[in-house]
Amino acid sequence: MAAARRGDRLETLKAEAASAGTPIETCVCDVTDVNQVESMAAATRAAFGRIQILVFVTGTNTTERALPRLKPAIWDDMIATNLNGAYYCAQAVLPEMREAKFGHMIFVSSTSALAADGSGAAYQSSKRALNGLSHAIRLEEKENGIRTTVVCPGMVDSELLDRRPVQPTPEQRAMALLPEHVAEAILSCAMMPPRAVIPELHILGSAF
Amino acid sequence: MAAARRGDRLETLKAEAASAGTPIETCVCDVTDVNQVESMAAATRAAFGRIQILVFVTGTNTTERALPRLKPAIWDDMIATNLNGAYYCAQAVLPEMREAKFGHMIFVSSTSALAADGSGAAYQSSKRALNGLSHAIRLEEKENGIRTTVVCPGMVDSELLDRRPVQPTPEQRAMALLPEHVAEAILSCAMMPPRAVIPELHILGSAF
Amino acid sequence: MAAARRGDRLETLKAEAASAGTPIETCVCDVTDVNQVESMAAATRAAFGRIQILVFVTGTNTTERALPRLKPAIWDDMIATNLNGAYYCAQAVLPEMREAKFGHMIFVSSTSALAADGSGAAYQSSKRALNGLSHAIRLEEKENGIRTTVVCPGMVDSELLDRRPVQPTPEQRAMALLPEHVAEAILSCAMMPPRAVIPELHILGSAF
Amino acid sequence: MAAARRGDRLETLKAEAASAGTPIETCVCDVTDVNQVESMAAATRAAFGRIQILVFVTGTNTTERALPRLKPAIWDDMIATNLNGAYYCAQAVLPEMREAKFGHMIFVSSTSALAADGSGAAYQSSKRALNGLSHAIRLEEKENGIRTTVVCPGMVDSELLDRRPVQPTPEQRAMALLPEHVAEAILSCAMMPPRAVIPELHILGSAF
Repeated sequence: MAAARRGDRLETLKAEAASAGTPIETCVCDVTDVNQVESMAAATRAAFGRIQILVFVTGTNTTERALPRLKPAIWDDMIATNLNGAYYCAQAVLPEMREAKFGHMIFVSSTSALAADGSGAAYQSSKRALNGLSHAIRLEEKENGIRTTVVCPGMVDSELLDRRPVQPTPEQRAMALLPEHVAEAILSCAMMPPRAVIPELHILGSAF
Repeated sequence: MAAARRGDRLETLKAEAASAGTPIETCVCDVTDVNQVESMAAATRAAFGRIQILVFVTGTNTTERALPRLKPAIWDDMIATNLNGAYYCAQAVLPEMREAKFGHMIFVSSTSALAADGSGAAYQSSKRALNGLSHAIRLEEKENGIRTTVVCPGMVDSELLDRRPVQPTPEQRAMALLPEHVAEAILSCAMMPPRAVIPELHILGSAF
Repeated sequence: MAAARRGDRLETLKAEAASAGTPIETCVCDVTDVNQVESMAAATRAAFGRIQILVFVTGTNTTERALPRLKPAIWDDMIATNLNGAYYCAQAVLPEMREAKFGHMIFVSSTSALAADGSGAAYQSSKRALNGLSHAIRLEEKENGIRTTVVCPGMVDSELLDRRPVQPTPEQRAMALLPEHVAEAILSCAMMPPRAVIPELHILGSAF
Repeated sequence: MAAARRGDRLETLKAEAASAGTPIETCVCDVTDVNQVESMAAATRAAFGRIQILVFVTGTNTTERALPRLKPAIWDDMIATNLNGAYYCAQAVLPEMREAKFGHMIFVSSTSALAADGSGAAYQSSKRALNGLSHAIRLEEKENGIRTTVVCPGMVDSELLDRRPVQPTPEQRAMALLPEHVAEAILSCAMMPPRAVIPELHILGSAF
């Protein structure tokens, strides 16, 4: 089940997946809305049964990230999407994972969670919190067979870069991570046998 | 200027301070409300002129911290108080600090920001974010003469302990930090000459 | 090329590898001796050509790890093996990696590098230093196409456990990582395309 | 008791301290030599009785810090001075601190212990290890009333800067920490009442 806010993107993804021979289901969902998150979880269960893996890759940034431009309303939106949404998703799947004594939550955070940088106060605060959420869930739920992983990528050549007030140069973009590198890392973590867990993994473009 | 939600506590504090020969002003303020934060800043300016030091010691935890009991509404409240409130306070004083090319923000976080522990997912996520906020502001505003410090205390013998689902033993309480130890550390940081800054300081009861 | 101090173990490994259809070369080497390290590198080059990947898994601990028992001579040995040996290996392969504009060094450290624990002062100091070494090399040599990874495993069910003053219970051992989990993680890092690097990865038994 | 390698510097310091009305004793000591460290401890005991506070500020760097210039012999020296020396000093005073159920060790490390930087592989490895040593001792000896603190300063305007391959500009030097800022921080930590400990403190020139 792939979920996102934008239905048109999901339709494209679904068509691509189908023509690649790996059909998927999709679900429109804004993670800042608890009810939509609950509905997404219900739709997933209806389609596939128990949810075993949650991959939270939602994350946004704002062109207004510099402190003189950041305003409380923008801050609130950033925290709601990047942080609260992650908790809503986790709490929606925790009961069934606990019951099954099996589950894996993978949160995609950022190297901005590891050291102060120019990504803006709201972004890096939310990403540090996301790391904390992942580790807190693991500590509390490991006795229930639940594993968590937080993946911290550096700059990825994605449309999120378009929101940077100062655009990376084409040379920098050409050295940035590709989304498939992050996907590869997520897959490696998800493929670990149940006895092992990768609680944290950092990944960068090798020139950075 | 001392600000807090509970007016009666502030009255007591004001009386104590006056009788100790160090009179203070007080202001009722709920930091989760941007307007109240702006009013507090305005009242401080009216009473004392430019704000030079902000000490953010607001922080709460919930008895419902364990994941099976934590609910989205409680999560939202925790994040609003411990994290969003800190940003609201910072943004309320940043313009005058920038203009004066001088200012110091001191955020009281927690050792829960440093490593996963039993303080609950909402608490430790908010505290990690608070560390991120402090460092992000410093990185961005140091060129404007603004310093930030994040103080991370371990267990403090305060009424916050009453909200722990498992109460610390009297022996543990007797070894916990006292609020005055944290105050002492804050003072040391605030007294550093402008050329130096203590960006981060950890403090524990020495038995922990 | 597999290198280690104990020739008999290497012979066994070589025979196992051969019968598994993946023949290897071996080399007896004590990493605390620069000359032996240089010879190992030379033997590897003679057998296989340019060295492209270095995996440093050497690491020891002492039964005398508690501070009242640890003595300067034991400390010196631990630092020589766990830390200095890693540097000697790295410097032995750096010139050819620089020249080839390609190379990957993977250092196996420990979760003891991440937070204070009961592994002893010498062990955890050496492991923190090893993380520093890995990141320092990456920062300095990334412009030469050299990548580094530091893998930090928790308790592994290996003979190193026999040196613990307090033995883990059979139940704990049964939940510890297996060496193949760490090998799997190393392989994932080594298989990343050259454009991406995993600078740091933590891996634990999922019950810990 | 002030100890250092260079006797002439110690004489000057002793004279300055005497004329400032705070007479001190001095002792020539190379911390890389266990015997000299033991003698220094014995001389201190003879002059002042039980040692209660150890402040380890020894630390060196090399002009040959870049990896193409760093050689095993230089590496070994750096580790011996910055890391092994710290352990030798600690083990020399641990028994009497344990017996007295009271003691405080303060290690001056560096921000290079916190994130990879241009200080060279040997320097930052040794400083990360020093942080590990401080925390390991604290964890193990806190039950004996022993506290440890690791102070991590950024660039200090001291003669150590002369060893940088790339000299900081006069403007950068003018914004660097002064040795007295670090001394002030050490003093704050040492003055904490025995019930509290500052395990780690970072300090920077506020422009950095």
